[in-house]
Amino acid sequence: MIIVFKPNISRKEEAAVLKEIKRLGYRPHIMRGVARTVVGAIGDELTHQSLESLITQFPGAVESVMPVQKRFKLVSREAHPANSTITVNGNVIGGRKVQIMAGPCSVESEKQLLTTAKAVKAAGATILRGGAFKPRTSPYQFQGLGKRGLKLLAKARRETGLAVITELLSEDHAGLVAEYADILQIGARNAQNFQLLIAAARTGKPVLLKRGLSMRIEEWLLAGEYVLSNDNPNLMFCERGIRTFETYTRNTLDLSTIPIIKQESHCPVVVDPSQGCGRADLVRTMCNGAVAMGADALLIEVHPNPAEALSDGAQQLSLDSFRQLMSELRPFIAAAGRE
Amino acid sequence: MIIVFKPNISRKEEAAVLKEIKRLGYRPHIMRGVARTVVGAIGDELTHQSLESLITQFPGAVESVMPVQKRFKLVSREAHPANSTITVNGNVIGGRKVQIMAGPCSVESEKQLLTTAKAVKAAGATILRGGAFKPRTSPYQFQGLGKRGLKLLAKARRETGLAVITELLSEDHAGLVAEYADILQIGARNAQNFQLLIAAARTGKPVLLKRGLSMRIEEWLLAGEYVLSNDNPNLMFCERGIRTFETYTRNTLDLSTIPIIKQESHCPVVVDPSQGCGRADLVRTMCNGAVAMGADALLIEVHPNPAEALSDGAQQLSLDSFRQLMSELRPFIAAAGRE
Amino acid sequence: MIIVFKPNISRKEEAAVLKEIKRLGYRPHIMRGVARTVVGAIGDELTHQSLESLITQFPGAVESVMPVQKRFKLVSREAHPANSTITVNGNVIGGRKVQIMAGPCSVESEKQLLTTAKAVKAAGATILRGGAFKPRTSPYQFQGLGKRGLKLLAKARRETGLAVITELLSEDHAGLVAEYADILQIGARNAQNFQLLIAAARTGKPVLLKRGLSMRIEEWLLAGEYVLSNDNPNLMFCERGIRTFETYTRNTLDLSTIPIIKQESHCPVVVDPSQGCGRADLVRTMCNGAVAMGADALLIEVHPNPAEALSDGAQQLSLDSFRQLMSELRPFIAAAGRE
Amino acid sequence: MIIVFKPNISRKEEAAVLKEIKRLGYRPHIMRGVARTVVGAIGDELTHQSLESLITQFPGAVESVMPVQKRFKLVSREAHPANSTITVNGNVIGGRKVQIMAGPCSVESEKQLLTTAKAVKAAGATILRGGAFKPRTSPYQFQGLGKRGLKLLAKARRETGLAVITELLSEDHAGLVAEYADILQIGARNAQNFQLLIAAARTGKPVLLKRGLSMRIEEWLLAGEYVLSNDNPNLMFCERGIRTFETYTRNTLDLSTIPIIKQESHCPVVVDPSQGCGRADLVRTMCNGAVAMGADALLIEVHPNPAEALSDGAQQLSLDSFRQLMSELRPFIAAAGRE
Repeated sequence: MIIVFKPNISRKEEAAVLKEIKRLGYRPHIMRGVARTVVGAIGDELTHQSLESLITQFPGAVESVMPVQKRFKLVSREAHPANSTITVNGNVIGGRKVQIMAGPCSVESEKQLLTTAKAVKAAGATILRGGAFKPRTSPYQFQGLGKRGLKLLAKARRETGLAVITELLSEDHAGLVAEYADILQIGARNAQNFQLLIAAARTGKPVLLKRGLSMRIEEWLLAGEYVLSNDNPNLMFCERGIRTFETYTRNTLDLSTIPIIKQESHCPVVVDPSQGCGRADLVRTMCNGAVAMGADALLIEVHPNPAEALSDGAQQLSLDSFRQLMSELRPFIAAAGRE
Repeated sequence: MIIVFKPNISRKEEAAVLKEIKRLGYRPHIMRGVARTVVGAIGDELTHQSLESLITQFPGAVESVMPVQKRFKLVSREAHPANSTITVNGNVIGGRKVQIMAGPCSVESEKQLLTTAKAVKAAGATILRGGAFKPRTSPYQFQGLGKRGLKLLAKARRETGLAVITELLSEDHAGLVAEYADILQIGARNAQNFQLLIAAARTGKPVLLKRGLSMRIEEWLLAGEYVLSNDNPNLMFCERGIRTFETYTRNTLDLSTIPIIKQESHCPVVVDPSQGCGRADLVRTMCNGAVAMGADALLIEVHPNPAEALSDGAQQLSLDSFRQLMSELRPFIAAAGRE
Repeated sequence: MIIVFKPNISRKEEAAVLKEIKRLGYRPHIMRGVARTVVGAIGDELTHQSLESLITQFPGAVESVMPVQKRFKLVSREAHPANSTITVNGNVIGGRKVQIMAGPCSVESEKQLLTTAKAVKAAGATILRGGAFKPRTSPYQFQGLGKRGLKLLAKARRETGLAVITELLSEDHAGLVAEYADILQIGARNAQNFQLLIAAARTGKPVLLKRGLSMRIEEWLLAGEYVLSNDNPNLMFCERGIRTFETYTRNTLDLSTIPIIKQESHCPVVVDPSQGCGRADLVRTMCNGAVAMGADALLIEVHPNPAEALSDGAQQLSLDSFRQLMSELRPFIAAAGRE
Repeated sequence: MIIVFKPNISRKEEAAVLKEIKRLGYRPHIMRGVARTVVGAIGDELTHQSLESLITQFPGAVESVMPVQKRFKLVSREAHPANSTITVNGNVIGGRKVQIMAGPCSVESEKQLLTTAKAVKAAGATILRGGAFKPRTSPYQFQGLGKRGLKLLAKARRETGLAVITELLSEDHAGLVAEYADILQIGARNAQNFQLLIAAARTGKPVLLKRGLSMRIEEWLLAGEYVLSNDNPNLMFCERGIRTFETYTRNTLDLSTIPIIKQESHCPVVVDPSQGCGRADLVRTMCNGAVAMGADALLIEVHPNPAEALSDGAQQLSLDSFRQLMSELRPFIAAAGRE
């Protein structure tokens, strides 16, 4: 930790702060600069008390306290310099091939799901998405088919060979959902629901962790740390847009997270342009950008009839639009040196 | 719903949109304006499909779709014109008296908790706060004493007569926490963890719902609706700051929510300036403002020795500072016509 | 400056960074911690080159670079420990008395302005606000009466004895506006229009600097530094809300800036709840809070007939509502120990 | 405008609102829905008074007021369905070729500028950027070489044949800067400095308008409208990131603006990844994404020795990195069907 003193404090005040730093287990190291005196408090920040309360305790003497260590470990590139890959149903996420996860926002019926699954598979997708348990802003909105939805996903997997990703909403469902799904999705609203992250990790299934609505990248990495530190190495980060003041889009898709997560972490990066923009007409262009910037996979909402969708109709692509997107995406995948 | 057409669309396109509106259960009503044609789609928005996907379905014809109904019902003033009050251990929240909830961020030891409890009671607090289960950004931070913390809170209640508020983190703990607490707190990171809201509501205990880090007021009211619609009328909203770009404070405490929630809802409003600013030196002033603006209660972090706190030391008041705050607050409480 | 090295870098890389630090005029001071090596670069940050480009220059070696000095000087409490006061037309801003600045958003006509001026004076205001040059989001909106508006403001001053505050939009108008106004207002959209700040400072008139829409407090203080460093000591900071994702209010009024600016700076703090919320029905409550928290003055929009206002009708108070506000404010002013 | 009534208002209140709507020049049209009564106020919103003050005027009766018209005209696709192109020194911006604007953040010396100009030209850039007048957060930072900087830019143009883009900071410099520059840049902090926009437009030179730090897309388009409505058709929009809570990057580059501006407007779209991220190591990847998503030009900061840069060293590329970027960009330009 670095402690910056206010200018013109007395030696007595200084001594009191140094004594407190020692009491909290750090070794203080003073540097007298031109305009400020600074103390380096030497000790492992991950195992010692934070010194941030020195500001409160010595309001006349301490101006600021700055940590110097990164707080995440297992998700970091330092811990695992090579890219991690996750194999799901024979498909490698994080390898040379850009994987496409596609399907409806919610599982609504057998016909809706199977029609979509067959169409997205034909167009090149390898993983089927579909919500069985849906987190809805209002209790009066459609909450998903629950277990029946999971069974339909399993049926679609049997009939198409696609792997299945679906959202886990509740600790109590972890075992149930893991029984039917190949990847467990943790949604943006639960990105810091740490109990749920632990429950998901413990199923042993790969976990896709969406970024929270106003989550800093460091917090996202630390939330991922909850998965890896619970003995599950198969974690993907999924950018899905952050909340800003903009009203043209539902969220602001922050594509800079692709190179940043790649730099800080070894885990694969997935981009969800459907949630990210909330507008089907922008999905195609956002996918081109995501692939050009190095995304390992895309998560795309597709519905046979978006106007009748029981959730988020405005952001789901029709089957035709999805086919077109897949064909337009090809040159960008090639330009990125991927398959 | 209001549907705005793009300029210069053909009658054929118009007819197709109108047909779709009818198919989805609404009765369309056309208004031809000077620069735009607008359709009022008549039908209950809470029970019908959203029409927002019309933008996707008819990209050349539909410019925007706007809902006209409010989506919350039970939390609204319309549903319950008088102020709701919640009685906890004989203390009325939402009545004439401004209630003070105070105590440490985390329960750390019997001595720490009892010292604090006695001091805050002596200074005028009526409710004791203290975290037994702590949601922490990193898995390597102190996670709370768990059940032992709950038992210490119960002991402090017995010894001081203070009511107890503590955070509920996990659906699986709902029964356990409800056994020991008088009020269940739902934290900012779980504000849209709907399964947890339902579990909390079903315990029958009063629920204090913190605002999420980037939660719109409408979403907050709808999250509250999950509590009331699960047969628990005892809900408080607690403003604790939103995340912005500002770095001087940990969050930006949005005091305008006090009059807005009072206008839109009948439920009591609590303000948490400790989390709101993340800085003990601002708490006193923020409390003065909150009380002047009509807050029904304050939630304040107090610790016998903030520098040694196992969590959030920088924002906890010492016992002395808390006493001083309580005495300075008095004229503002009087000015607001409260006790 | 503090430079944090990445873990496990070679002595050779370390030496290269140290050499560069010296070349840029700083004296490096190494601290070897448990998990990181940190360098204190000793030298005045205000006169030397920033070292932030070391991250770019040595991407494999340098993890982060942190400044330790505050960048503002003349506006800081350190430079001027006592509160500054500004006297305008005999009214002291920053003294014991809370000053009320009130009047229409735009000057629209003689009748509108004089009616308002007399009414706000009768209710206790001492300074008349009114826009003659208006910055409007669209070029098709009313842009203000210009010079004619200034003349009407001067007339209202003669007839009522109120001082006058009005916005300066253009460097080219600085002389003209200063001729008619007692205080020059710099609007939120121009808060980092540094040429305008310099031009305003050079008129010698007191300057009220609104906070920009997404301005950090440090940037605001530095923008104020442009005024003081151009030989004008009469600066006020005016909080008027920041832009967030919330849609219930036009902006989020950040009242925590009152104690923070008071702590960091000696300049008076003004609060504008009209712009801050964009809703007349919230103005009264926001004023109560602002005064309780130590605001030196309030800036309130008042119009004889808000519905006919040529700009921002939704946020202007009627004359009656303003009178009521002034009377309700009294106990809070007293509670704050002000007049 | 659409006016939504509160539920259960009396016919008398309704009549009063309708009368006021008529008085303000609109023709009201009532629709009685299931849960709400809605009024369409028919009349041109661009020439009539806004009705938003009805909420203030009739707080018991009016719940919300929503505009239905877009407020921008000349910048809109409706006004000019084909893409606009701007020809600068023989280079077409907005055509098939992706134009590269590159050069130092600030012009610092003849050697620095000419070295950079020759290098970026050799690598394929067609337009030279370089700040002569610099807007700096602090008055103590380097403010640019001013007129001498402009002369150096002109010299670089003569020697290399590159066109020149440089920032205009002050209305008073409009004539001077226009004499030396081929494109006038309006910076983010001046994006709603409407007097400056007008002054820039009137020089007749092409204008590049950066997005403000927290500017909504609609406001950006309206700021552009100030240029076109002052008889200057040569406008480019330049995305440079918005301010969010994220701290890994200086700003959050919002690449979704590329397809959105293309959809709403006919003007070319430029992307500035240097300001957008504030980190040289992310520029290359952001450029790949921007080009894949349809950007017409890129604005990139390049410096022969970033560590010695007098401004923003952390975000400037070295000459080598720039060359590498240009070569890596090629396949993405081809994939986008551009040159």
